[in-house]
Amino acid sequence: MEAELIAHLRRRLPSHPLLRLGIGDDAAVLRMAEVDDCVVSVDLLTDQVDFDLSEVDPTRVGRKALAVNLSDLAAMASEPLAGVVALALPRKGGMDLAIALYEGMLPLAEEFDLAIAGGDTNSWQGPLALCITVIGKVTSRGPLTRSGARPGDRIVVTGSFGGSILDRHLDFQPRVAEALRLAERYELRAGIDASDGLSIDLARLARESGCGAILQTDAVPVADDAHRLVEKLGDGSTPLEHALGDGEDFELILAVSPDESERMLAEQPLDVPLASIGEFIREPGLWQVDATGRELPLVPRGYQHEFD
Amino acid sequence: MEAELIAHLRRRLPSHPLLRLGIGDDAAVLRMAEVDDCVVSVDLLTDQVDFDLSEVDPTRVGRKALAVNLSDLAAMASEPLAGVVALALPRKGGMDLAIALYEGMLPLAEEFDLAIAGGDTNSWQGPLALCITVIGKVTSRGPLTRSGARPGDRIVVTGSFGGSILDRHLDFQPRVAEALRLAERYELRAGIDASDGLSIDLARLARESGCGAILQTDAVPVADDAHRLVEKLGDGSTPLEHALGDGEDFELILAVSPDESERMLAEQPLDVPLASIGEFIREPGLWQVDATGRELPLVPRGYQHEFD
Repeated sequence: MEAELIAHLRRRLPSHPLLRLGIGDDAAVLRMAEVDDCVVSVDLLTDQVDFDLSEVDPTRVGRKALAVNLSDLAAMASEPLAGVVALALPRKGGMDLAIALYEGMLPLAEEFDLAIAGGDTNSWQGPLALCITVIGKVTSRGPLTRSGARPGDRIVVTGSFGGSILDRHLDFQPRVAEALRLAERYELRAGIDASDGLSIDLARLARESGCGAILQTDAVPVADDAHRLVEKLGDGSTPLEHALGDGEDFELILAVSPDESERMLAEQPLDVPLASIGEFIREPGLWQVDATGRELPLVPRGYQHEFD
Repeated sequence: MEAELIAHLRRRLPSHPLLRLGIGDDAAVLRMAEVDDCVVSVDLLTDQVDFDLSEVDPTRVGRKALAVNLSDLAAMASEPLAGVVALALPRKGGMDLAIALYEGMLPLAEEFDLAIAGGDTNSWQGPLALCITVIGKVTSRGPLTRSGARPGDRIVVTGSFGGSILDRHLDFQPRVAEALRLAERYELRAGIDASDGLSIDLARLARESGCGAILQTDAVPVADDAHRLVEKLGDGSTPLEHALGDGEDFELILAVSPDESERMLAEQPLDVPLASIGEFIREPGLWQVDATGRELPLVPRGYQHEFD
């Protein structure tokens, strides 16, 4: 029941220096005196789209819901501050489900020093939907946006891509620390996180920057998961196709000047590898060039919510 | 389709001085340099619980979803700043539905000078769920909370109660301006908005303040809707019962010292009537006294989300 869950959460949710007032009132109150600009991101996840509750432990679902939001903060190279959680619970088993969702979020919130500031708990006849909104702090370097890439900038990515559906989409590490470290040490021109698919998210970044991008396909770091998925599916798809279109890799896609990217790649300042996979170009659109130097249009692929 | 809706919203959503970066990136960026403390509130509304999409124009649903959040800011006596909107749309007709929801929000956002900063649009096989998170600015008088009522304080309410299901729950006016005006002119000790039911929300306010409350039932302003609902139902319920338990009145319930409440009621500084309906007392629990002076326990009633 709603009142019992709120009582549980008031005991369970840790205090945080940012929280002047946490769960239990009409709204949370956050200390923002030391924040000039803040970023706000919201993500709503639903059963059978973002996870399959019949197959997955709900703690992993809770973790994913928060991680997806943290990845948006990473894409903006911003520091996590606080989050609020809204749940639409199925009436049967909703209490244990809600508790498990929060248990999945809490370690991640602690790891990223994020205050869980409050929430809204509802029940209904529908399947589980959960919506998290996070607030982050823009650092003194300003927010990293999608619109700053210039022709000639290199496309630099963290990690590897493809086949996240096998498991990684639930357990990925949001690249918050990585984005902040890179933004501190290097001049980043633009950034986005690969949530819907490497090629579609790269195309978005390029378009917002008023340019195009050419991808060197043999330089794309293909995840082991992509190879495993190809074997499992046996449908003639290639690991590269999965790397370009699967999505939910939640790696960073960055625009970096040639000199800066050279320095970055030589220094490899992160625990996760950095790779240069192409460059931004003046003409709009997305292109691919393979090892033989042949240039072809690349159709952006990735997850898009369909409705009419 | 998702991309088309985002393109539509980028044209449709107005700019706002607070918005350094609006819809179209991984997160919105808000100018918060002049905000010391902020309040954050989230509300998730679902079809068949908060509205019936088969009977109600979706613009009214969108308006209600934002109004419910604004009412939380009113309960904190805080100024609206910005909101983000997350939708889980049914796949069939989702585009027109999303556009209508936003069309319902926009006039209210404009009225309260709230920036619609961004959102997240999803589709799924379930019914409509929409989640709005709003950020408000705590004024120099600090946030109004549930915990400041003291024994002897009067229970002061705006407006009237009961029967909101007939229509008012969709078209109510969030008491933001009223709360700010009252907080500026009078010392308010505590406050809450009547979202789930006058009696249950009053009980919550009293409990958070570590006291009880005694309600003078003949002083409760009963809405015309409550009388109309009794006639319509013909089930032996009374207008007072509906006033005490229906909820979704979204009026303010305030704790005010006796002197201050006397001044407030004499001055009636709002367009909506203010009434004193009882007082806070030392012993915990909720009590009622009728015109004959008889004192009885009052069981708090109102909407609670049920799940097990």
